[in-house]
Amino acid sequence: MIIREKEPANLEMPFGTLDGFITPNDRFYIRSHFPVPQIDRSTWRLRLEGAVESPLELSYDDLCGLPSTTIPATLECAGNGRVFLVPKVKGTQWELGAVGNAQWTGVSLGEVLRRAGVKAGALEVILEGADCGTISESPKPAGKIHYARSVPLSKALEGVLLALEMNGEPLAPSHGFPLRAIVPGWFGMAAVKWLQRIVVTEQAYNGYYQTVDYAFWQRDEAGVELVPVTQMQVKASIARPGINEVIPAGTEFKVRGAAWTADARITKVEMSVDGGVTWEEASLGEETAPNCWQLWEWNWKTPATPGRCILMARATDSRGRIQPMERDLDRGSYEINHCLPIEVEIR
Amino acid sequence: MIIREKEPANLEMPFGTLDGFITPNDRFYIRSHFPVPQIDRSTWRLRLEGAVESPLELSYDDLCGLPSTTIPATLECAGNGRVFLVPKVKGTQWELGAVGNAQWTGVSLGEVLRRAGVKAGALEVILEGADCGTISESPKPAGKIHYARSVPLSKALEGVLLALEMNGEPLAPSHGFPLRAIVPGWFGMAAVKWLQRIVVTEQAYNGYYQTVDYAFWQRDEAGVELVPVTQMQVKASIARPGINEVIPAGTEFKVRGAAWTADARITKVEMSVDGGVTWEEASLGEETAPNCWQLWEWNWKTPATPGRCILMARATDSRGRIQPMERDLDRGSYEINHCLPIEVEIR
Repeated sequence: MIIREKEPANLEMPFGTLDGFITPNDRFYIRSHFPVPQIDRSTWRLRLEGAVESPLELSYDDLCGLPSTTIPATLECAGNGRVFLVPKVKGTQWELGAVGNAQWTGVSLGEVLRRAGVKAGALEVILEGADCGTISESPKPAGKIHYARSVPLSKALEGVLLALEMNGEPLAPSHGFPLRAIVPGWFGMAAVKWLQRIVVTEQAYNGYYQTVDYAFWQRDEAGVELVPVTQMQVKASIARPGINEVIPAGTEFKVRGAAWTADARITKVEMSVDGGVTWEEASLGEETAPNCWQLWEWNWKTPATPGRCILMARATDSRGRIQPMERDLDRGSYEINHCLPIEVEIR
Repeated sequence: MIIREKEPANLEMPFGTLDGFITPNDRFYIRSHFPVPQIDRSTWRLRLEGAVESPLELSYDDLCGLPSTTIPATLECAGNGRVFLVPKVKGTQWELGAVGNAQWTGVSLGEVLRRAGVKAGALEVILEGADCGTISESPKPAGKIHYARSVPLSKALEGVLLALEMNGEPLAPSHGFPLRAIVPGWFGMAAVKWLQRIVVTEQAYNGYYQTVDYAFWQRDEAGVELVPVTQMQVKASIARPGINEVIPAGTEFKVRGAAWTADARITKVEMSVDGGVTWEEASLGEETAPNCWQLWEWNWKTPATPGRCILMARATDSRGRIQPMERDLDRGSYEINHCLPIEVEIR
């Protein structure tokens, strides 16, 4: 793993090691905002409160006793690819590997919400982690805050998983043990780790991690507004070759990578080896599932003469969304899904 | 006027010159975010759009022809007193004089909204100025933005004035010519200058100047949330003596200042000359009006022996709100209404 920050741990999968539909746990990227909280499984509780008929307090064993389901889902950090942005923007300088696809096993959040009885008028559901600390840059709250994100009630009622296991193993501490929210289709910041509290609210939640952090600017008739980062954006990413990789001239090279989007299927991945002037269609792998990446590959007949080539991949999804060629600057330091140039050397 | 920033102009009244209920135009503080926009009165239009039955476009003469009203209102910059914060926080380093009280003449926003016909489902009203520019610090929108703030529809329908005149004169360019919103009881950031567009919206507005800027952190059961700065907070401010003023020992000194709050009356101003240990009640001036400051004075028998004294004023309003002694750090760089120490020398 590539270390982007030692403590708290922010680790990235070397994306060139991509070799299957499922990312092994020990190669799954780790994004932490605060140190890993010390949690004792026997005393840990998940509290569910706010606009519900009966607030709940569930132990680890309680959760293990509820109906369980397993779904695969891709998580991508909202800042994945940030190191490609010039000039540099603030935030962890991820290359391509802050993304992974795993099987998640746990309890449906909707099931738990229905047990508590959501009141009429409920609007959002806040997911709060046990991880906490202070913020150093302004604008900042004065004291300690917990990592927390909200999802709309409709999303919380269907589609969000309270995951106890990752690829068939209990969550590791760095991945959120004992409980992590999985919000399929959304960037990883919604997949709150070390989940300890769920609050149903009747008003839009404006927590730190969806206003000052993990938010971007959107222009419409009313003006420019701050909106939270939510859904992953259509994107194809090249795993091999890597940047500056030396490739033999006049041979065949298997270019490969993964492509993903949200609430849609990947319908096409195209490859360009001339910096985006011409494109050829790549082959999509067979394994696929909703809100999961899809592997792809493309056989490149490399040029006969030495020189530099700029490779780009471009994905299209079933909603007709195509990866943009240019960066949308209003996205700030998030949602980096424009076609990224992978420059290689033919020798 | 004390210059806090040359261009755009940010000027402060030397608060020691406070000498009446109404602040003269040439001593009224100026807060600008961008350069003064060049506006031609004959071609300028106020547009009213969004969730209304009939969008309107009003000329200066149209507005002059509508029923006119005059109200006094105090405007205080949300960062007034910031220079007292240690450690220093970012923002214009105002002392005490980013506050003033004027007579504002113009047209009721509610009247104009009723002419346009607000649709059912409308929630907020965005007030947009003609002033615009780019933001340099992250998180920031990429391109130019206009200064804009919203008010809840209920507030917009009663109480907001579209002011053409300030103390009986047409607005000066630096005060928002041709039109400025006056939102009585709210900090000055809501009093949008160079008003050019009013947008009725069906969703909460999350513009730059009420999220990243002019917002603070509020803690409740759901966690910590970013909320826009809105109402002025109860506050008494000492105009004389000034900081480090030398005062004769064993005499009478008339301490004076102003006190204000929002949607309530000032019921009491107390003075302390021992840093907040003991308090005596000051006399309130007779002139008063809703959402306006009230002058006050207190006769101080100065100590017989030389030394330093720390003066503090403390206001209480008719809703029982009392100025706090300590700074609420979650307020960040805004709403500085804790009792500020004015240290003087007895000689």
